[in-house]
Amino acid sequence: MIQGTEDAVVIAGAEREGAFVLVCEHAANTFPAPWGTLGLSEGQQAAHIAWDPGALGLTERLAHRLDAPVVAASVSRLVYDLNRPPHSPGASPSRSEIHDIPGNAALTAEERLGRTRAIYLPFHNALRSLIAERLALGIPTALVTIHSFTPVYFGTPRAVEFGIIHDSDPALALAVLAEARAQMSLNVQLNEPYSAGDGVTHTLALQATPMGVPNVMLELRNDLIADAAAQDAMADLLAAVLRAALPRATALTEAV
Amino acid sequence: MIQGTEDAVVIAGAEREGAFVLVCEHAANTFPAPWGTLGLSEGQQAAHIAWDPGALGLTERLAHRLDAPVVAASVSRLVYDLNRPPHSPGASPSRSEIHDIPGNAALTAEERLGRTRAIYLPFHNALRSLIAERLALGIPTALVTIHSFTPVYFGTPRAVEFGIIHDSDPALALAVLAEARAQMSLNVQLNEPYSAGDGVTHTLALQATPMGVPNVMLELRNDLIADAAAQDAMADLLAAVLRAALPRATALTEAV
Repeated sequence: MIQGTEDAVVIAGAEREGAFVLVCEHAANTFPAPWGTLGLSEGQQAAHIAWDPGALGLTERLAHRLDAPVVAASVSRLVYDLNRPPHSPGASPSRSEIHDIPGNAALTAEERLGRTRAIYLPFHNALRSLIAERLALGIPTALVTIHSFTPVYFGTPRAVEFGIIHDSDPALALAVLAEARAQMSLNVQLNEPYSAGDGVTHTLALQATPMGVPNVMLELRNDLIADAAAQDAMADLLAAVLRAALPRATALTEAV
Repeated sequence: MIQGTEDAVVIAGAEREGAFVLVCEHAANTFPAPWGTLGLSEGQQAAHIAWDPGALGLTERLAHRLDAPVVAASVSRLVYDLNRPPHSPGASPSRSEIHDIPGNAALTAEERLGRTRAIYLPFHNALRSLIAERLALGIPTALVTIHSFTPVYFGTPRAVEFGIIHDSDPALALAVLAEARAQMSLNVQLNEPYSAGDGVTHTLALQATPMGVPNVMLELRNDLIADAAAQDAMADLLAAVLRAALPRATALTEAV
């Protein structure tokens, strides 16, 4: 049972007091009732259009290293993309990359309302509560959302391996970029393969900016985090980058 | 019983489908258990430091004219100021204008957490849900927060009668300013007697900007809305101003 309950969101380690809160909006490729598979094949349900492969495994390993709470989706982004507001066509897209999504082809307003109530609101109200409670207690808090992207998009290979994306407050993104370029041998780019102009920073804008919380969205190419060993190695690297970046970002934010 | 329930927020007319959602964060000067009167005299509990006198009466009359839902606080701003995030000293201030607030003098982290859970989160999660559900249903939505200010502050009279305040998206504020100056004979000023730099636009930043919803904060001098007749007259004027302003603001926002 998902509908109307908090089953749309999985929170792990809410009591952890490390400075980062990790969010994984595209963690799951599950298609529970009442929505079901939306007419997708098994192959489509397993593909990157349904979720961000590797992102949850990476997030959990990073959380362990950073003593960080994790807030993750438990429903496919094709049912509701938690990084989109309810009136965005991308919240329940009728097409994703080269795939039609039959179950989203003719959504009524009532169906959008049902998914908003069952998925969007429980997820974002839970994340809001977690952040607000930490701030009330005086726990330093930065928000990091973790995503993966496909190596080939619309038939074109992507060279970028690690994308660092910001919304209106770039402080943490710029600090992570500097540390990543100093510490990692990956192809690291700012605001690639997506940027705020593509509408991908809703969670940052909704949850971090209004609270004055440093924030950044991380995008890893999914072939680099495809199994547990790769996720462990990437988590080691990212933990060091984030630990070093946060004091730089905080100093920058406080100087503004 | 307030604690942990939705009694910290009063929602009227959630089903109304006019384009405005009206919010009154400082509607009430009630001091319920478990917080009580915070050591304030009866005179202090009735004064502008405890609430925005006249604001709720004006809001309700405006809501009637605009077919608008109202989301209002039911607890004094001195217990928790719903226009401040949980870590702001202003959320439960130890001093307001020339008055010490004894019950806020030495708040522990646990006490801040208790007020955040009992007041801030129910209010803002309820407002978030109302806005998100309207957007899911495709109902045009603009957010207007309604405040009043004291004619004399720190001993100095204020000439401004109607202040129009914006956060990062000024479109609706500028449209309301133009209409107010055209339609009203009041002393109307932009970003007076407060502005975003004073930290007074938290609700706009939290609830409207991330959703792409036009938004504005209205401040009326409280001697102009002191009784029902004055509130009726002001509601007539403001309803006309807001109705005329919204199409101008929407056109401006869509052009950006």
